[in-house]
Amino acid sequence: MIVETKPHSLLVVGSVGLDDVETRAGKRSAVLGGAASYFSVAASFLAPPRMVAVVGTDFPAQHTALFEKHGVDLAGLERVPGETFRWSGVYSPDFVNRTTIETRLNVFSDFRPKLPAGWGASDLVFLANIDPQLQFNVLEQAGKPKFVACDTMNFWISGRRPELLRLLERVDMLLLNDEEARQLSGEANLPAAARSIRAMGPSAVIIKRGDAGALLFHEAGVFSAPAFPIENVVDPTGAGDSFAGGFMGWLARAGSTSPQSIRTAMILGSVLASFAVEDFSLDRFRTLDLSEIRERFAAFVDLVHFEKIRL
Amino acid sequence: MIVETKPHSLLVVGSVGLDDVETRAGKRSAVLGGAASYFSVAASFLAPPRMVAVVGTDFPAQHTALFEKHGVDLAGLERVPGETFRWSGVYSPDFVNRTTIETRLNVFSDFRPKLPAGWGASDLVFLANIDPQLQFNVLEQAGKPKFVACDTMNFWISGRRPELLRLLERVDMLLLNDEEARQLSGEANLPAAARSIRAMGPSAVIIKRGDAGALLFHEAGVFSAPAFPIENVVDPTGAGDSFAGGFMGWLARAGSTSPQSIRTAMILGSVLASFAVEDFSLDRFRTLDLSEIRERFAAFVDLVHFEKIRL
Repeated sequence: MIVETKPHSLLVVGSVGLDDVETRAGKRSAVLGGAASYFSVAASFLAPPRMVAVVGTDFPAQHTALFEKHGVDLAGLERVPGETFRWSGVYSPDFVNRTTIETRLNVFSDFRPKLPAGWGASDLVFLANIDPQLQFNVLEQAGKPKFVACDTMNFWISGRRPELLRLLERVDMLLLNDEEARQLSGEANLPAAARSIRAMGPSAVIIKRGDAGALLFHEAGVFSAPAFPIENVVDPTGAGDSFAGGFMGWLARAGSTSPQSIRTAMILGSVLASFAVEDFSLDRFRTLDLSEIRERFAAFVDLVHFEKIRL
Repeated sequence: MIVETKPHSLLVVGSVGLDDVETRAGKRSAVLGGAASYFSVAASFLAPPRMVAVVGTDFPAQHTALFEKHGVDLAGLERVPGETFRWSGVYSPDFVNRTTIETRLNVFSDFRPKLPAGWGASDLVFLANIDPQLQFNVLEQAGKPKFVACDTMNFWISGRRPELLRLLERVDMLLLNDEEARQLSGEANLPAAARSIRAMGPSAVIIKRGDAGALLFHEAGVFSAPAFPIENVVDPTGAGDSFAGGFMGWLARAGSTSPQSIRTAMILGSVLASFAVEDFSLDRFRTLDLSEIRERFAAFVDLVHFEKIRL
């Protein structure tokens, strides 16, 4: 059965930055990074997102051009005097540990997200990993979105807990990794952690486990999305944000946030994340096309396929 | 299409012991343990296995009775003067770490597995985690099994590497956990580790990742089996052996080692492992019945189900 649905509009707020990154595969300086960058370009393969972010006057025009080429609506991308957000980090050879060398907020430190006219009526809102107070301010400007998802991190869980808890009362879904889920809930067991977090507000929780995939806990039960086994990982930066982009991009394209759409969205999130790690920065997305996404989606179908049996 | 097949005979060699175990859920002393115990009873729900193992004169008759009740053929279970193999360990509250307090080999230290008459013609052989030299000796007594799988551990990978490598040339499948796969191959990346291990002999490798499920690498590609999210884990001891029991039990029952049967077997392995951790020792298996296995298999089908889409 094919139900024709109207696509949903999709808004993201988050960081756009320049990264210095070193992995076993090499080293890159001042390459495009930031959660909103990965999210937007990943989402763009499924539905064009609206970006709310800030960059400095040093932000290269080629990066803005990349966003435009992917149909990202940049009416909410402010350019202000000063330097763009910078992050630098190094991954251990086995990619298990990441050491942040330096974070310079630069123009991001005074960022007060402002939604352009009309964007308050966005159907879907993704609050990428920024200060929960800013995430809350964006929600205040949004009207009544059909679905709000947010990301967070250890830094905010410990340092901005009251603000984060206030935010969670108003979001439909929280995405976070396993360690963050344990930290937020105080529960070591992941199903118990998810249950505890769902009691804080979000009806759905996605726990990301890196190369072990992601788990969804919501009112319709549990769903396990595998990660695609990638032999040649080049740079894991942005994998989680690309997952979120593919995830929200599918919900926007499908015009649905039903439990079944959310499951399929997790697979598309995993698909986009699996491409993101195959090159530095957003480079893999530069050449990616829909036929490759289609092929990898089929590979995910095969990855978990088994015959039903009678016992 | 239903193809009627003849069940395969299944032989296991491994440890049978008495465990002292402590977890956040409590403490048990001198309870039934050992890889061959978990394997055999887990497998018995699908196909009755033949057990080759050794116990001392102190081994309680009630445990032998449990094996018999589950249809385990004990013609290969030696009872010799001395004490039964003993293991004691403590799990961290989050179940991430296990500390072995003591291992006393006792009668196991002089164990020389002997296959009873006729067992050399077993179709399927599982070499549970014991000295690779003993595993090899069992293979020498076996005729030409259709399928040989083996388990191993860090202790043998570092201390009996030449013997292990000689063994691997003659097995069809190796089951091991992610850390062991990295240790054996020297590769941090799991697909790379699996490729390296397959070059050592086994055409198939299963990498077990605890509550993150298991990955199969073989000539027909990659398969990802999820773990069932269990909120009330009581005792993870024997989960891997129960997985192997459910896995080999299904191959025996199906009378097939085809790539599709191997995928289904991994799900049944995961099903049995998910029950094993719900109570201490083999206690959960005492009350388990086929209808519960059927229900959880259906829950696994649902756990990974998503709608196929057109992009």
